[in-house]
Amino acid sequence: MGELVFIGLGLYDERDVTLKGLEEARSCDLLFAEFFTSSLVGTGPRRLSNLYGKKIKVLTREEVEGGDIMVEAAMSRRVGFLVAGDPMAATTHVELRLRAHRAGVSTRVVAGVSALTAVAGALGLQIYKFGRITSIPFREEGFEPLSPYEVVGMNRAAGLHSLVLLDIQEERYMTAGEGMEYLLGCEAELSKGVFLPETAICVVGRLGSSQPLVRADRVGTLLEEDLGTPLHALVIPGKLHFMEVECLSEFAGLPEDLAQSFNP
Amino acid sequence: MGELVFIGLGLYDERDVTLKGLEEARSCDLLFAEFFTSSLVGTGPRRLSNLYGKKIKVLTREEVEGGDIMVEAAMSRRVGFLVAGDPMAATTHVELRLRAHRAGVSTRVVAGVSALTAVAGALGLQIYKFGRITSIPFREEGFEPLSPYEVVGMNRAAGLHSLVLLDIQEERYMTAGEGMEYLLGCEAELSKGVFLPETAICVVGRLGSSQPLVRADRVGTLLEEDLGTPLHALVIPGKLHFMEVECLSEFAGLPEDLAQSFNP
Repeated sequence: MGELVFIGLGLYDERDVTLKGLEEARSCDLLFAEFFTSSLVGTGPRRLSNLYGKKIKVLTREEVEGGDIMVEAAMSRRVGFLVAGDPMAATTHVELRLRAHRAGVSTRVVAGVSALTAVAGALGLQIYKFGRITSIPFREEGFEPLSPYEVVGMNRAAGLHSLVLLDIQEERYMTAGEGMEYLLGCEAELSKGVFLPETAICVVGRLGSSQPLVRADRVGTLLEEDLGTPLHALVIPGKLHFMEVECLSEFAGLPEDLAQSFNP
Repeated sequence: MGELVFIGLGLYDERDVTLKGLEEARSCDLLFAEFFTSSLVGTGPRRLSNLYGKKIKVLTREEVEGGDIMVEAAMSRRVGFLVAGDPMAATTHVELRLRAHRAGVSTRVVAGVSALTAVAGALGLQIYKFGRITSIPFREEGFEPLSPYEVVGMNRAAGLHSLVLLDIQEERYMTAGEGMEYLLGCEAELSKGVFLPETAICVVGRLGSSQPLVRADRVGTLLEEDLGTPLHALVIPGKLHFMEVECLSEFAGLPEDLAQSFNP
């Protein structure tokens, strides 16, 4: 009997997989991967292949979403599907899992380290104080949603932090700078005072690497700063506990005057 | 020069650590662990010791929060602090990290798989549609906060799902049943119609194990069901996308009539 196992690869390189994920991948008959919903910036398919001891077929979005390559293979074989981060964070994989299930293929999920919690941890922000997560897409003709700005506004009105994920398309990774420009564009349109050059913002990058970026400052300041290579993510803080302020000061370079503005 | 490295162990047993976490722990001079903020139900200190090839000193809450055992050791040696889940999810570790930093000890965080994303993934619920996370404490004389109920109510009013984590104290793990009874108690007090026997709820348990529990049904039904051993967590769904309804039906046994109630 076949099986389709979704295996999370974690944050940055081939060593961010769990031991369970490693063993699962090694024991599969066939391995597929995708790097369009997320990506391991610190490694590539060849190093993953070496680690797992077998070839990995990297699939395009069309092959994952349209085709039934994996579902068909999993009818009779154990198929592993490698995904950066946590494998169920992307809707498209939930859909694939349902499709496989309906075709009679049994499925399993091996969870991976997700940026969603790692970002909070790197900044010292409490996971309980985050509101809804949002993400910013690359601008396209007729598709420039204002929803990321609106989610940030609603979260902040409730005193909650906002994690803002940044789009990935092919080999193109949205930078923190592009994300901030997008939100400034929303501000120009909606003028609710949610996202201004003087707004406090946190930027993280390359989590899981030996040189992660962890910064907190004004939008205007960070727009001028070299934040290095992707992946980046943004957090717009809501109300900060004094311990959160201290973490941002000690670990993320939050300037003293901005820190003061968060203290009661 | 010493160092204090926070290492996340993930969800369930000793194989839920990442390769990076494993290598870090193996290369430390000294290993400490705590199992009071979270716990690896599927393993114990001895198996962890075997994996890492060195002794592990398990600390009590008092030793982690009050004492400076780890900070002092980390002045001159590489100290690893092993924590289930993601190591920065608990405030007490953020505080420890700040204390170490102020004492001049350099610190690092190796992220781990967190229940926060794994729960959503196991249920097929979209991480973008979660509101604020909350947790239920064991009832104590004079400490029975209504905030978990209030957070669930606010999230649901906004159409968002609520992840409800359940308390751990020493070897005592709050069960899904106890958590549901707690919320029913809040309902009896506040009567806002947020949490009733007919309310839809999801329960997950033993994530990361080979026999995870993934259920969705009415509160009244799941209160009567044997949900097995901990760790458990609850999700009270907000507005469900049709794909989320399908996942709950296919993977969590959501009954047909309850599924219908979520469809527009």
